[in-house]
Amino acid sequence: MLQGYTVPLSPRGEANIASAPPWHYAGDVIGVEFWTEPEAAEATLPEGLTPDPDTSGRVVALYFDWQFSGDHDEYLDPVRSQYHEFFVLVDAHLKGEPVSWCPYIYVDNDHALARGWVQGFPKKMGAVHQTRVFASPGKAAPTLSQGARFGASMSSGERTLAEARVTLEQPMSDPSPLLSRDTINLRYFPRLSVGQYDRPVVHELVRMIAEDQQVADVWSGAGEITFFPAVGEELADLAPVRMGMGFRMSMSYTVTEVREAR
Amino acid sequence: MLQGYTVPLSPRGEANIASAPPWHYAGDVIGVEFWTEPEAAEATLPEGLTPDPDTSGRVVALYFDWQFSGDHDEYLDPVRSQYHEFFVLVDAHLKGEPVSWCPYIYVDNDHALARGWVQGFPKKMGAVHQTRVFASPGKAAPTLSQGARFGASMSSGERTLAEARVTLEQPMSDPSPLLSRDTINLRYFPRLSVGQYDRPVVHELVRMIAEDQQVADVWSGAGEITFFPAVGEELADLAPVRMGMGFRMSMSYTVTEVREAR
Amino acid sequence: MLQGYTVPLSPRGEANIASAPPWHYAGDVIGVEFWTEPEAAEATLPEGLTPDPDTSGRVVALYFDWQFSGDHDEYLDPVRSQYHEFFVLVDAHLKGEPVSWCPYIYVDNDHALARGWVQGFPKKMGAVHQTRVFASPGKAAPTLSQGARFGASMSSGERTLAEARVTLEQPMSDPSPLLSRDTINLRYFPRLSVGQYDRPVVHELVRMIAEDQQVADVWSGAGEITFFPAVGEELADLAPVRMGMGFRMSMSYTVTEVREAR
Amino acid sequence: MLQGYTVPLSPRGEANIASAPPWHYAGDVIGVEFWTEPEAAEATLPEGLTPDPDTSGRVVALYFDWQFSGDHDEYLDPVRSQYHEFFVLVDAHLKGEPVSWCPYIYVDNDHALARGWVQGFPKKMGAVHQTRVFASPGKAAPTLSQGARFGASMSSGERTLAEARVTLEQPMSDPSPLLSRDTINLRYFPRLSVGQYDRPVVHELVRMIAEDQQVADVWSGAGEITFFPAVGEELADLAPVRMGMGFRMSMSYTVTEVREAR
Repeated sequence: MLQGYTVPLSPRGEANIASAPPWHYAGDVIGVEFWTEPEAAEATLPEGLTPDPDTSGRVVALYFDWQFSGDHDEYLDPVRSQYHEFFVLVDAHLKGEPVSWCPYIYVDNDHALARGWVQGFPKKMGAVHQTRVFASPGKAAPTLSQGARFGASMSSGERTLAEARVTLEQPMSDPSPLLSRDTINLRYFPRLSVGQYDRPVVHELVRMIAEDQQVADVWSGAGEITFFPAVGEELADLAPVRMGMGFRMSMSYTVTEVREAR
Repeated sequence: MLQGYTVPLSPRGEANIASAPPWHYAGDVIGVEFWTEPEAAEATLPEGLTPDPDTSGRVVALYFDWQFSGDHDEYLDPVRSQYHEFFVLVDAHLKGEPVSWCPYIYVDNDHALARGWVQGFPKKMGAVHQTRVFASPGKAAPTLSQGARFGASMSSGERTLAEARVTLEQPMSDPSPLLSRDTINLRYFPRLSVGQYDRPVVHELVRMIAEDQQVADVWSGAGEITFFPAVGEELADLAPVRMGMGFRMSMSYTVTEVREAR
Repeated sequence: MLQGYTVPLSPRGEANIASAPPWHYAGDVIGVEFWTEPEAAEATLPEGLTPDPDTSGRVVALYFDWQFSGDHDEYLDPVRSQYHEFFVLVDAHLKGEPVSWCPYIYVDNDHALARGWVQGFPKKMGAVHQTRVFASPGKAAPTLSQGARFGASMSSGERTLAEARVTLEQPMSDPSPLLSRDTINLRYFPRLSVGQYDRPVVHELVRMIAEDQQVADVWSGAGEITFFPAVGEELADLAPVRMGMGFRMSMSYTVTEVREAR
Repeated sequence: MLQGYTVPLSPRGEANIASAPPWHYAGDVIGVEFWTEPEAAEATLPEGLTPDPDTSGRVVALYFDWQFSGDHDEYLDPVRSQYHEFFVLVDAHLKGEPVSWCPYIYVDNDHALARGWVQGFPKKMGAVHQTRVFASPGKAAPTLSQGARFGASMSSGERTLAEARVTLEQPMSDPSPLLSRDTINLRYFPRLSVGQYDRPVVHELVRMIAEDQQVADVWSGAGEITFFPAVGEELADLAPVRMGMGFRMSMSYTVTEVREAR
């Protein structure tokens, strides 16, 4: 009897690209809030989501340095457990509820890509980098203080797609505005039968559930981000027309499920 | 209306990690046939496949240098269209029909990984390399001639998993023994609901269909391959106990579908 | 007594990043000839070289898929022996002799980078890709025939720097125009002493020597190339103002030395 | 007049793989002290260094997550400025002075490789990873506390070469025992002339100078490390026979020079 949560199923159940939850995450995030043309944001929404009438065109871009673990200290294997992630979240409504929708997301780790697909995140591989802080910064690193600057970039397929800069202004005592919207994802798996390429066997909107979510060292400030067009990519269609807040924080949470989006 | 064959679905349908077929492939392959313990091979078979009573334990390991294209000259973008692949095929029976089963497969390109998952190939990311031939070989490359030697290796997650060596002996006028078995795959997509991790929403055996398959420059000879154990991998459980033939050839085919395995 | 040709010197002499010559190379090359503004080309010339009065501004850009070997069948270890290379050659004069000068060159292999530095090639790391041909091309690969098209690209530090396209027109019976100029390199090693950063301990123009050079399957045709500016790069300062010939061929040679450039 | 500290020299002086000092560094380090057979350690020493009679065979292995900057906020470009490094330091004597010697070192960034060569560090490319801490650790990251565990690994050329584990026991109020020895390096640049491969043009022992060195969050504890043999590598010849201390800290310093080793 083969074992495993994802492929490859195997005799001992160790070879699967993603083992069954719980999935624990800890990381640092640099984010930039911006507005794109409302019609550009709305064009990315799947059936079942509608524009947020109050904030249509609002997008948050996020760069994460992540460390993953299951329940068996997988963080001790940093090759497989660490990765970098970039994604954008578009404001939307789910039956009147303000939510976020993730049209594009990139990671540099195939295990994270597989977990993402199962959660409904449409992950592709990309190279993602952000400036880090260290306990002994010297002249090579910013500190968490007013005026500190952070750079971030993302490329995929050898094309630069996004570059960002955040300058810290003050600690953010209440980060709830950054965390208030649930993220709605699309679990999707296509058919491979002639004439049925557009009739996926799995096509379900789900609500991403982050348990035990904690944040620390939350700072807000100024942000800017630039997208670069490339063949095979549509991220740059969300070109910013106005910048909002920049921010940086540390975050952790656990995933065990998604729920039907209703 | 969002477009695309796979995620991410998008307004223009260009961002998807894998666009709809046809999928055209051309490549060079180095292969090693070997026998493992029959019970090791049989332990990898999914429900629906049974051991081949005549050849149980026979495995073929394959290293491919691939170039992909759709119908729009995608081979002109070598960053996305080229990749390297390693996989093993285990002899099995499908209701009495001799077939192949692919328990483990590794690629270095996320687009190939996505197409593989849709076909039911359980792809993970890996680094795969094989010795190449050139029209002007000098002293740095073998030629397609008796005694020519080829090396190949595969690693994943920074661990070396497989190393092979093939020495050519003679052209193979009839390569059909290498191509006679259909490959049976498992299309699979899990649920992400507590208590239902072992109840996938997609779990279907399919027959891989290679259209317009052509081969060229087929040589057979001696082969050897070694697997190395690693945490999170089970390939080495298929450790060879006896080597069979080594071979090298060029191959092309087109994929537009899989069919129900019956 | 430590052994080795380059660092790291070691007890057994096996750990060095580049072992002593002979260095054998075989590869496929896609090239594009173009003209940039003469002053842009001339600005890259080191002391000792002067503009070629007949062809100032002429540049050849080259994408190579290489396989390396020493005298011990190192091509059987494709991980270390294969690499991809991009460089530009600028027409110049050495005391009246028409020569080539290589201002910028990128590879994806540290052993190749080390050999390059010793030869005087100013190598940096980059990702380099070109369309390949296969003996069984199907619809995923061009053949060596009139109208065949090849794409190529290069990026470094996650920034796309160069994209090229070559369309074959006819076999080139006499490739000597492509090979007639010797390449002049600058061997260079700086001091790391305050006040002496601009007083290198090694600064010598040398002539690159390619022994036993052979070419095969030489085709000429149309070429185009585009450079993209990026922080930390000056390749795009050689922006093409007029295209020349495109070409593709296979090449092999051996390196055992450089000679004083005089 | 061409500009630049290292190759490529260029018209604007921006393209060089390493610009002139100052070079500022900040990072996190996981270290394991161990003893190998004295003769194995002594075999790595260059002419000019002798075994330390009190500690011959003592080695410290270090895994660094680094961020680099020059004087122009280069840390805002994390693609180029961040890298990971592994190296071993062997106890030795320089004319009776206790010093460290670095026989083997690996990084994943070509700019760091180039700066290393200029300093006399014999860098090769490798993939290096270590467990990280985050301000919001959750269940995916250790904290700096008793019993916290860290994993680390290094591979080069797709071969795993070193794996380590450190468990924290207590803060280390006086880290000077870890920092007391100067590191002696060998600046080296070979000739490429037949018959003179063993007569380098640069061959000089130098003392590495770390200015403004600061450490923070220094913890000591238990450590273990394993080396794996591979073709083309000699690190495993330093196989541990006894483990010493494990430790973790943050560190920053600046480099502007090396000094003659005397």
